[in-house]
Amino acid sequence: MLKALIFDVFGTCVDWRRSVAREVAAVLPGIDALAFAMAWRAEYDPSMARIRDGARGYVPLDDLHRENLDVVTRAFGADVRDPDALNRAWEKLDPWPDVLTGLARIREQAIIAPCSNGSIALMTRLARYAGLPWDCILGAELARDYKPAPQVYLASCSALRLEPDQVMMVAAHNGDLHAARAVGIKTAFVARPVEYGPEQAIDLEANSDWDIIARDFNDLADKVAGRG
Amino acid sequence: MLKALIFDVFGTCVDWRRSVAREVAAVLPGIDALAFAMAWRAEYDPSMARIRDGARGYVPLDDLHRENLDVVTRAFGADVRDPDALNRAWEKLDPWPDVLTGLARIREQAIIAPCSNGSIALMTRLARYAGLPWDCILGAELARDYKPAPQVYLASCSALRLEPDQVMMVAAHNGDLHAARAVGIKTAFVARPVEYGPEQAIDLEANSDWDIIARDFNDLADKVAGRG
Repeated sequence: MLKALIFDVFGTCVDWRRSVAREVAAVLPGIDALAFAMAWRAEYDPSMARIRDGARGYVPLDDLHRENLDVVTRAFGADVRDPDALNRAWEKLDPWPDVLTGLARIREQAIIAPCSNGSIALMTRLARYAGLPWDCILGAELARDYKPAPQVYLASCSALRLEPDQVMMVAAHNGDLHAARAVGIKTAFVARPVEYGPEQAIDLEANSDWDIIARDFNDLADKVAGRG
Repeated sequence: MLKALIFDVFGTCVDWRRSVAREVAAVLPGIDALAFAMAWRAEYDPSMARIRDGARGYVPLDDLHRENLDVVTRAFGADVRDPDALNRAWEKLDPWPDVLTGLARIREQAIIAPCSNGSIALMTRLARYAGLPWDCILGAELARDYKPAPQVYLASCSALRLEPDQVMMVAAHNGDLHAARAVGIKTAFVARPVEYGPEQAIDLEANSDWDIIARDFNDLADKVAGRG
């Protein structure tokens, strides 16, 4: 019996690329804002990798984003007047069009929570901005480590006092689901084929027999209800 | 500028005494259910004290409640068929009548979250039962300690990436507010004069010059809005 669904957020629930680009364009006219957003995001995984590897202690994603902004700003030769304010772009990400209706229906069936690499503070402010109706905030900060480290998924189950097989991870990223399945969590894939723009080449479809493969969050709500 | 309000829950937001008594009465006919609820709650502080004192490592409140249930069951000579099910009484507590309208209005002004000794799991399930519209769940489990230990309040501010003076603690218990003020958090008192029943003798009124003293959560919403 499924008691909770936990969600990847960046890409799966929200369109970070166009939302961040909108914030970049507002303060850096003349810069290719979509390219800037993509470059900023490209620093994301390397910056977490050092923490996952133990080369650095846990630092919340807000601070990694801020450090990475300096890297990207230099690469673009840009002059950002207030980088702390621009860093808050990650708190103002628009949900994909199916997310709010789908989450509202899924929430009638089970607990819903983010299992993101974003901090509690970031996920809280993003939820308020985007209207994401989470029951609580789970994810990286509880484990003080970053996905796909197994402890992040397990700490999220443990915080709900649930066994992994009572929980389902929802993501647009096959790698996230492989990591969740490896610790016994159920899996649901929802493709987001333009997360990285029209040229996206990865995660266009499910690459394994996930427990649910859904077109969008409304379809996911149907399929979760169908499991009973 | 106030960015977040954090709330005591048991007693301040919800009427645990009559709600727990209702669940006790449903499974233990013939027992004085209100007395049973009061006796169960009386074990609460001593059970946390051992953890605060370091005599025992952190154990979530769900487990303390379950241990305390055995103590009270023995004292009442009761025979509880399914103590794990009865322990879930603490997830089914009714809000005081002003709470939902007040919280909805306060949430328009600032982040709202519980800063309770209840676990993330317990606070999440209680919020779903009672309709408490929290933005996230903070409190004891983040600090792996129990109020009034200062770290519980500080960890809640830190999880929101806020300074203590940007946060206000709301409680019906003067002791909770003294502890919050001691670490620099703003304070709001809302009396709940029948939390412990008609004979209640403590916390009938504010015993210090708290930043806000409100009649109920609707009055609190007015006073928070008035601070701008």
